[in-house]
Amino acid sequence: MDRRDVLKLSAATLVAAWQPGGLVAEAEGRPAVSANIERWGLFEVEFKGPVTGNPFKDVTLTAAFTQGHRTVEVRGFYDGDGVYRVRFMPDEPGSWSYKTASSVAELNGKTGAFECVSAKAGNHGPVTTAHQFHFEHADGTPYFPFGTTTYAFLFTSEENAANSLAGMKGMFNKSRVCILPKPLGEGSQILPFPVSGADQNGRGGTNDYTRFNPAYFQLLEKRILQLQAAGIEADCILFHPYDAWGYKAMPDEVDDFYLRYVVARLSAFRNVWWSIANEYDLVKAKTMSDWDGFFRVVETEDPYGHLRSIHHSRVIYDHSKPWCTHASLQSYDFEKSAERRAAWNKPIIYDEVQYEGDIERRWGNLSAEEMTRRFWLATVRGSYASHGEVFISADTGPHAHESSWSDAGRLRGESATRIKFLHDVVAKYTKVGLNEFEGSYYLSVGTPNELYLWYFDYHRPARYEFPLTGTGNFEATLIDPFAMTETKLQGTYSGKSRIDLPNKPYQAIVFRKVSDANGKPVHDAPPQDEP
Amino acid sequence: MDRRDVLKLSAATLVAAWQPGGLVAEAEGRPAVSANIERWGLFEVEFKGPVTGNPFKDVTLTAAFTQGHRTVEVRGFYDGDGVYRVRFMPDEPGSWSYKTASSVAELNGKTGAFECVSAKAGNHGPVTTAHQFHFEHADGTPYFPFGTTTYAFLFTSEENAANSLAGMKGMFNKSRVCILPKPLGEGSQILPFPVSGADQNGRGGTNDYTRFNPAYFQLLEKRILQLQAAGIEADCILFHPYDAWGYKAMPDEVDDFYLRYVVARLSAFRNVWWSIANEYDLVKAKTMSDWDGFFRVVETEDPYGHLRSIHHSRVIYDHSKPWCTHASLQSYDFEKSAERRAAWNKPIIYDEVQYEGDIERRWGNLSAEEMTRRFWLATVRGSYASHGEVFISADTGPHAHESSWSDAGRLRGESATRIKFLHDVVAKYTKVGLNEFEGSYYLSVGTPNELYLWYFDYHRPARYEFPLTGTGNFEATLIDPFAMTETKLQGTYSGKSRIDLPNKPYQAIVFRKVSDANGKPVHDAPPQDEP
Repeated sequence: MDRRDVLKLSAATLVAAWQPGGLVAEAEGRPAVSANIERWGLFEVEFKGPVTGNPFKDVTLTAAFTQGHRTVEVRGFYDGDGVYRVRFMPDEPGSWSYKTASSVAELNGKTGAFECVSAKAGNHGPVTTAHQFHFEHADGTPYFPFGTTTYAFLFTSEENAANSLAGMKGMFNKSRVCILPKPLGEGSQILPFPVSGADQNGRGGTNDYTRFNPAYFQLLEKRILQLQAAGIEADCILFHPYDAWGYKAMPDEVDDFYLRYVVARLSAFRNVWWSIANEYDLVKAKTMSDWDGFFRVVETEDPYGHLRSIHHSRVIYDHSKPWCTHASLQSYDFEKSAERRAAWNKPIIYDEVQYEGDIERRWGNLSAEEMTRRFWLATVRGSYASHGEVFISADTGPHAHESSWSDAGRLRGESATRIKFLHDVVAKYTKVGLNEFEGSYYLSVGTPNELYLWYFDYHRPARYEFPLTGTGNFEATLIDPFAMTETKLQGTYSGKSRIDLPNKPYQAIVFRKVSDANGKPVHDAPPQDEP
Repeated sequence: MDRRDVLKLSAATLVAAWQPGGLVAEAEGRPAVSANIERWGLFEVEFKGPVTGNPFKDVTLTAAFTQGHRTVEVRGFYDGDGVYRVRFMPDEPGSWSYKTASSVAELNGKTGAFECVSAKAGNHGPVTTAHQFHFEHADGTPYFPFGTTTYAFLFTSEENAANSLAGMKGMFNKSRVCILPKPLGEGSQILPFPVSGADQNGRGGTNDYTRFNPAYFQLLEKRILQLQAAGIEADCILFHPYDAWGYKAMPDEVDDFYLRYVVARLSAFRNVWWSIANEYDLVKAKTMSDWDGFFRVVETEDPYGHLRSIHHSRVIYDHSKPWCTHASLQSYDFEKSAERRAAWNKPIIYDEVQYEGDIERRWGNLSAEEMTRRFWLATVRGSYASHGEVFISADTGPHAHESSWSDAGRLRGESATRIKFLHDVVAKYTKVGLNEFEGSYYLSVGTPNELYLWYFDYHRPARYEFPLTGTGNFEATLIDPFAMTETKLQGTYSGKSRIDLPNKPYQAIVFRKVSDANGKPVHDAPPQDEP
């Protein structure tokens, strides 16, 4: 390894890589650039290369990263201004070396190396599926998706993005974000492709689908790193029907060209998930064969195997297809979760369960109570849900005409804190996720003879005989999901235990085994509250 | 007509007919017995006949009632103690004569006559289906079923029955009542068949299925008349699975023997409906062919064509069968109402939508809010619902161990008044019933260009643009279904009308056309509140 290369890498990355999109300070979540790259951190190397012709099309660039017997080949990309980059996310500590291959001599055969060191605090690696119906980080840290929706976060104004980030931080751990732009009202927007002949709002022009606008993607990357620093997975939506520029009906070869470029740029970010489309069935120019093909392009191009799914409007995708890692549904028929798991054998995220808010459209005016209820229903069906929010009622006040949360903006609703509360409850009681089990009369998840979480929904029995199967002793905690209270009941319970319940609907109770039949404790310590 | 016969009839009916079950005073709802029978009133004549052998089996008795060219043949019945009765409900005013036919000479060829006079106030005749998906009384008075469930009302203790009746009166206009007994805890009960060798609780004996216990049926009739006087239809359940005596698995010929006897006794009561069974699919001894057969027996035996349906637990009966007049469902999937109407072409009553209460079973612990919501959902799907209630939480207080409302007892819940409120709203705005119509974005019923009732369920838009199709002017009233408030909005509305709505879920709004495009009023008077 050439020492000068390492120094050059540091400087180059700091100065050049982020300039078009603005330099990302460490406080904003940019990993410190160093010759020592942390595990699941972002290694990046830049090269100067040809600016003539069409570098996006004419120049190929790949790099093979090697550690011991293992080699990972990644695709580089042209970032404009004669700059070519290769990014890599090392998943094992130790020495890595690389060698480039290119169709042009000045980018071919470039070599280098770096040390991968242990991950820093808070970096648990990318999220993968685990335990059949759940998720975890690459280092084994549990990950329970309690996400939200901020479609325009990656390309919206700085103000909206800052508001959005402030609302998400500490509240949600995933957000659905669009890679292609959504029309955001008046004014021109930064766009992924060069356009000519557009009007003053940037509409009606002719797209140059042979090139990209690197500044657009640099902005996206800055925002993805902001999410990463805030502990938020970026559920990146690759296609969507909310389009003003023609991107939902690009020629087939442009779709692939776009996908390869995006994956080359973004796949080394550990917090990226791939959502092939939002409401794919509303994108009328594409067929099921196209969607399946997009999955396979992404699967082939992404060396890290980030999570992949696709989100529907009315026609549910067959999530049993092998390239799909989990289900990403738009519905709230949680009662079908068990049959869906049986059919798909994968985790289920109800990624849109309608939105909290007060707009006129049916999907956007849930009360906070109803949104909270839906998260609990998803949970006690062994699945997950995502939040969204759209309010108009404040549009005559000081926040008139600001964009809604689910594009990107201020968080106004009251369900978010309840969702975080539920997330904390789940994280307190399980390390792997909660599963439905056979024979529960009321909705319940957990592990027989270990843990039970009941949610009563609209039922309000004055008392209930809980079937605490097994031989141990359980402690019980009543939970009010909306008031966000936890009331530990006195004593312990075993076997069939009749317990008086609050005379109100939408209550929950959790039983956690604390000792076996002989009174021997089964845990080293009581469950910990979140810090 | 023999004047002495008329006098004898009056006296006999008053003194004899009701003695075993107790004489029903007029204040309790017994129509005054008179030679002048009101339209849809109960004409009854008794004859003395043989007491030897088995009069229930050995003696046939029918009577042909004639008015002009029309003759209606009805079956008489043996009422014990050598008394045979024939009942008839005249449906047309004017002179009626009758002549009996019997297998025994002393009952054969008896003749008589009576005058049918106009119905008294409050007597609108039996309920029939009307306007395809709705109901009305025989005199054309609108009837919207807002019923409840008091399974044991007909045979429970006087105290429970009195409590039950007090709760129903003025609140509900139908109740589901069992004809065969339900076990009501400790102690023996009055039973429809003689039994020998039973224990002290009346269990374990041998039923004599060749005879009936007239006192049992006399009690039922007294209670059916109490319901009638209170304006309540008796939705009479002929079979049910809640049995301690073997009645759910009687021999086929006993089933028919029982049905013919019940129909002979009860069909002349104008407020009778026939529910072939409750939860028929839980009565394992019977087949679908049996159920169909019971329908046909009832249809054949009942000269008046009282409403006929059957109520399921899990397996919905094919209500398109011609002998079934309306659907009587156990479910709350109201969103399927339109497809059910398309399949069955009949009115739908969701006769069990779970119960308000607080018991441990899933079906018996809805909040009043949820029960109220379900009634509104049924209404805005163009269908109807029935109430039920079971509470245990008061079982340590002064009402400990009393039976629950849905057997018969005190009304304790808070949904009943809200259901009555909804009934009043419906009755205020329509004379025929509310129908879903095509193209409503939120749940809405009514008649385009005349009346619209929207219910927003869990949606809470801050405002909504109501599509008031047509050319007229509408007045608008906001309704809070649980608070039971009606707030008339100022002015009138026409065409697409955007209206600010309360910032809460479960609200409704009704638009009623008040004038045409030229400002000419379309109603003679504003809608009237119930007296």
